[in-house]
Amino acid sequence: MIIHLNNSVSAQTANEIGEHLKAIVFKEADYYVLVTPFAQKDIPTSVQAHVQSSWPMDSDIQLASKNYKSELRRIRWGNTEIGGDTDNTVVIAGPCSIESWEQIDATARLLKSLNISTLRAGCYKPRTSPYTFQGLGLEGLKMLAEVRRQYGLNIITEVKDSSHIEEVIEYTDIVQIGAKAMYDQSILRRCGEIRKPILLKRGFGTTLQEFVQAAEFILSGGNSEVILCERGIRTFETKTRFTFDLCGAAWLKQHTNCPVILDPSHAMGYAYGVPDLAKASVAFGCDGLLIETHPNPKLAKSDAAQQLDFEVFTKLMGDMRNIAVAVGREII
Amino acid sequence: MIIHLNNSVSAQTANEIGEHLKAIVFKEADYYVLVTPFAQKDIPTSVQAHVQSSWPMDSDIQLASKNYKSELRRIRWGNTEIGGDTDNTVVIAGPCSIESWEQIDATARLLKSLNISTLRAGCYKPRTSPYTFQGLGLEGLKMLAEVRRQYGLNIITEVKDSSHIEEVIEYTDIVQIGAKAMYDQSILRRCGEIRKPILLKRGFGTTLQEFVQAAEFILSGGNSEVILCERGIRTFETKTRFTFDLCGAAWLKQHTNCPVILDPSHAMGYAYGVPDLAKASVAFGCDGLLIETHPNPKLAKSDAAQQLDFEVFTKLMGDMRNIAVAVGREII
Amino acid sequence: MIIHLNNSVSAQTANEIGEHLKAIVFKEADYYVLVTPFAQKDIPTSVQAHVQSSWPMDSDIQLASKNYKSELRRIRWGNTEIGGDTDNTVVIAGPCSIESWEQIDATARLLKSLNISTLRAGCYKPRTSPYTFQGLGLEGLKMLAEVRRQYGLNIITEVKDSSHIEEVIEYTDIVQIGAKAMYDQSILRRCGEIRKPILLKRGFGTTLQEFVQAAEFILSGGNSEVILCERGIRTFETKTRFTFDLCGAAWLKQHTNCPVILDPSHAMGYAYGVPDLAKASVAFGCDGLLIETHPNPKLAKSDAAQQLDFEVFTKLMGDMRNIAVAVGREII
Amino acid sequence: MIIHLNNSVSAQTANEIGEHLKAIVFKEADYYVLVTPFAQKDIPTSVQAHVQSSWPMDSDIQLASKNYKSELRRIRWGNTEIGGDTDNTVVIAGPCSIESWEQIDATARLLKSLNISTLRAGCYKPRTSPYTFQGLGLEGLKMLAEVRRQYGLNIITEVKDSSHIEEVIEYTDIVQIGAKAMYDQSILRRCGEIRKPILLKRGFGTTLQEFVQAAEFILSGGNSEVILCERGIRTFETKTRFTFDLCGAAWLKQHTNCPVILDPSHAMGYAYGVPDLAKASVAFGCDGLLIETHPNPKLAKSDAAQQLDFEVFTKLMGDMRNIAVAVGREII
Repeated sequence: MIIHLNNSVSAQTANEIGEHLKAIVFKEADYYVLVTPFAQKDIPTSVQAHVQSSWPMDSDIQLASKNYKSELRRIRWGNTEIGGDTDNTVVIAGPCSIESWEQIDATARLLKSLNISTLRAGCYKPRTSPYTFQGLGLEGLKMLAEVRRQYGLNIITEVKDSSHIEEVIEYTDIVQIGAKAMYDQSILRRCGEIRKPILLKRGFGTTLQEFVQAAEFILSGGNSEVILCERGIRTFETKTRFTFDLCGAAWLKQHTNCPVILDPSHAMGYAYGVPDLAKASVAFGCDGLLIETHPNPKLAKSDAAQQLDFEVFTKLMGDMRNIAVAVGREII
Repeated sequence: MIIHLNNSVSAQTANEIGEHLKAIVFKEADYYVLVTPFAQKDIPTSVQAHVQSSWPMDSDIQLASKNYKSELRRIRWGNTEIGGDTDNTVVIAGPCSIESWEQIDATARLLKSLNISTLRAGCYKPRTSPYTFQGLGLEGLKMLAEVRRQYGLNIITEVKDSSHIEEVIEYTDIVQIGAKAMYDQSILRRCGEIRKPILLKRGFGTTLQEFVQAAEFILSGGNSEVILCERGIRTFETKTRFTFDLCGAAWLKQHTNCPVILDPSHAMGYAYGVPDLAKASVAFGCDGLLIETHPNPKLAKSDAAQQLDFEVFTKLMGDMRNIAVAVGREII
Repeated sequence: MIIHLNNSVSAQTANEIGEHLKAIVFKEADYYVLVTPFAQKDIPTSVQAHVQSSWPMDSDIQLASKNYKSELRRIRWGNTEIGGDTDNTVVIAGPCSIESWEQIDATARLLKSLNISTLRAGCYKPRTSPYTFQGLGLEGLKMLAEVRRQYGLNIITEVKDSSHIEEVIEYTDIVQIGAKAMYDQSILRRCGEIRKPILLKRGFGTTLQEFVQAAEFILSGGNSEVILCERGIRTFETKTRFTFDLCGAAWLKQHTNCPVILDPSHAMGYAYGVPDLAKASVAFGCDGLLIETHPNPKLAKSDAAQQLDFEVFTKLMGDMRNIAVAVGREII
Repeated sequence: MIIHLNNSVSAQTANEIGEHLKAIVFKEADYYVLVTPFAQKDIPTSVQAHVQSSWPMDSDIQLASKNYKSELRRIRWGNTEIGGDTDNTVVIAGPCSIESWEQIDATARLLKSLNISTLRAGCYKPRTSPYTFQGLGLEGLKMLAEVRRQYGLNIITEVKDSSHIEEVIEYTDIVQIGAKAMYDQSILRRCGEIRKPILLKRGFGTTLQEFVQAAEFILSGGNSEVILCERGIRTFETKTRFTFDLCGAAWLKQHTNCPVILDPSHAMGYAYGVPDLAKASVAFGCDGLLIETHPNPKLAKSDAAQQLDFEVFTKLMGDMRNIAVAVGREII
């Protein structure tokens, strides 16, 4: 159950009520919000006088539910904005990993030329083998900061475990929680404390219920800016890297109030399929896309097979803009 | 290995060579085609004189492979045509099951008003329980024939097991092999003998490799008109009925020469997600869509949750036509 | 809802009531049984006088449910018996495909020497490619009949589609419905009409609910002897052929009244793992096992990787007998 | 490629060679071990003089591969030992979460009475919802230490994220890395630095390849004592909590040198199936089991449905000991 307390209720009283109801407490605007386990359906008489309004819920998808707030959350970074009453579809692009200044500089120039506002590049790579390239780490973060300074681009990069979360929070405009880190509650809780947008990737073995419940860890910390990202789930089909769950994305659009970003690059795993999937995603009506592009995909140190070269990516941007117009949206 | 024999080779010689090579033999235009297990990589010296051309293959996806014929197969029924060098995307619509003349007549009128050429409706329903509605059977087929006569619509309906295959072949313009029947070799082989287009649905537990190999049973019978239909696979995610495998569809487009039709209605299982998935499918560049629509979905005797009412469907048709233009295709 | 009519009710009245209630009707012992869709929860007043007893059910798992009959069904063929109050675990063994008289004769001699009563061998193979060995067909069935005559072994073989069902019914002691044929209602309904045990394999993409509902097609035809066989489901893990669903088997034991047979050979797909899985299956408390063994697995024309040679199989039989004793069961 | 350097090679030289070959370097006994990416197949001439022996490998499953060391790793904690040339199957039991001193004290007394050496209980719970019980944390660890002091039991508990790893390392005898934390490289690497056994749980969406590669992070840190734990994977079947992957466990036994422990409680998710699955696991020949038992499962604060009460658990221990004898193993 979600409870908004009267704005006259003090922090101390709010916390006492929270303890009484085994609720999580956070402040929103000028009042306190309590979230109890969903099994709670009634407000005790002793508490009722403090309550402004309340929402009984039918699962632990609570703050993210359309049954609580039906309007789409508005998320803003720099001059970029998605959700709310915008019809914006943001394209976030860049290489899987930042590998060198030359690579990221070339990519930044491409993005600027295409009017793209936000660059993605991994610094800490959640590789499955210890014997392969593990990312540039802090050195990469510093290069990204330099890209921002030189080109005015916003930056998004991934937290893969909690060892480097403070660095990522410091350097990026959007914090991306990777698919393999999305159950990590110390990361989720830390992201609840900050005031930057969080892009939460769905784990490839994660149900929609669990995925949105992970978002609840962030939202119930008081950070209202959570973006959900579908990036492919693991199924019996192995001719493609993952299976892009557009049905799941349709469910998220229908039932949650968080913007949905789609990542066709990781879902497909092969460059040949990415443009068709990206175009499909725009027509589907997503709030944004993550697309991997690299100046020379063959030489990429990670995910070489799935990154688009600049020519294909440039052509795709044009196609996506046309489709966006056809469905009443705008690519930003 | 696929082998085209010289057109001077007689049926008897072709069959002798076929037996020698453990090959399947069929006639195409004026020459015989042999398909051996793909492990065969060389043509025996004794046979070489009869061979016009040959294609060693790397799996038992042979006749359907772009490595054999890179151009997309052209499929035609009535005045409708997909594949080949057309940029057509056909919309095939209608109710899950034919339930009454009133129901199918209303649907036919809607389709005509929207310039849709082909009506779908199930007569033999592959229900999972014996205790629910099983379809109208032959009576339904006869109603569909009457719809064709009155409205000039083409008809597609489903074979669910071999007990009624001859009836379906007789009454329909396209034979649909259902997802649960697609491993049935007596059905596949019978469809190889006829000269009507076959729409082969992927089983929900079927790999892409197996799916296309099922098409090989039909193609190697001499029927070159096979359409592949992705309709959702079964995964761990159960908030939606199935998981729409657009990555798989991208693989099919890249690797096979068969047109690909998508079925968002069965994938999603809930009407609310169907329009967004259908729009995505058009932008993806599929050769066609199967969409379920019913004059009164709430009263439908099967799949009530996933059928669109006429108002939503009509709106969707307009949206899809706009998207098709944006990607250089035409909705027919 | 399942309804037992009074034994004084005539066939005509039973059918009239059945039509009224949209029920399936069959005769059991000296009374008629009706099964309505499970949504039916009450018996109309006009019918009550004819009713001996009734069971409202909570899903279309009805006749197979322990909520209807809690005792395990007793299944008998030849002198072999499983289920009921026996503690028997039957081992059914033999090659994937019957390939020659020498092969099947050698296998039959091995089985006799190990006191195994029932031989399995496929005649019609549901291969996924048209370009590979498709089975000996009727010729194979005749060899199996000869094996029965010479060795007194019972025979089980598989129906893969309805084109050859009458032949299989004629020649075998148990009719096996293959994993790819288990949704085929013409096969299921035909098996409901006969009086031989049916071994129904779970499809690799089939939920437990659907699997047991397929059994309902047979049971509601009046054939009470249905054995359920778990043989591996398709999951994201591809280092083994399938994933053996012992959790699912535990669910079947808990909720249904049909004996459960396990097939570790198909689940694993590799001979090295089969003995450990077979031993696990015995300790688990299954009612039987299907195990593939072949005089020379390397030369097998199908499933070569997963068949045990005679030495390994003989050793395994001894191990399984020891485990059976430890869990209070007997290998037959 | 795995390379053992001569024992005369100094740390400095070992590290130089390591850097040259992009290898991970650690010390084993009195020599250094290098592990390069598996693509490396040859040793450069300049390095050959320092090499004692080397193993080219065919995937990044290297140190854990039977192709490197074919004997099973021996793992020891307290007086308990598994793997190596023992035939021991260890039973590790206890509640899902430690909830109170009374609860854990009762459990410890039961374990002692059944000659069980190692108690499991979760302190930090990786719950999927922020609104439910999250575990006792450090307070729980201290109770476990008290249990060890009073009863002489060994303790295993779970790390769910890196925020509390040092505490867990300090208090437990075996460090369990939970299914949701197993991709966390900061945890994996930290576990490579210590000298306590690590029980690594397979993620429910994790392939066998990825699972063993996670073990490589630990092994290549120099900690040779890694136990692999299969605890159910996520599949389309939802009538049980997960699907117990015994085929996968058979693959691990065949291809890796790490002991394999099975967790039927989490796989099944329902107490009714746990005894049969546990018995199956013993006959399968696993090196150990994790089984959840609770003095009063109905009141459990987490995983209430799957924990065995003491009576069922006690009966199960007897059954498992009988089966172990039948397969030539000993329950410890």
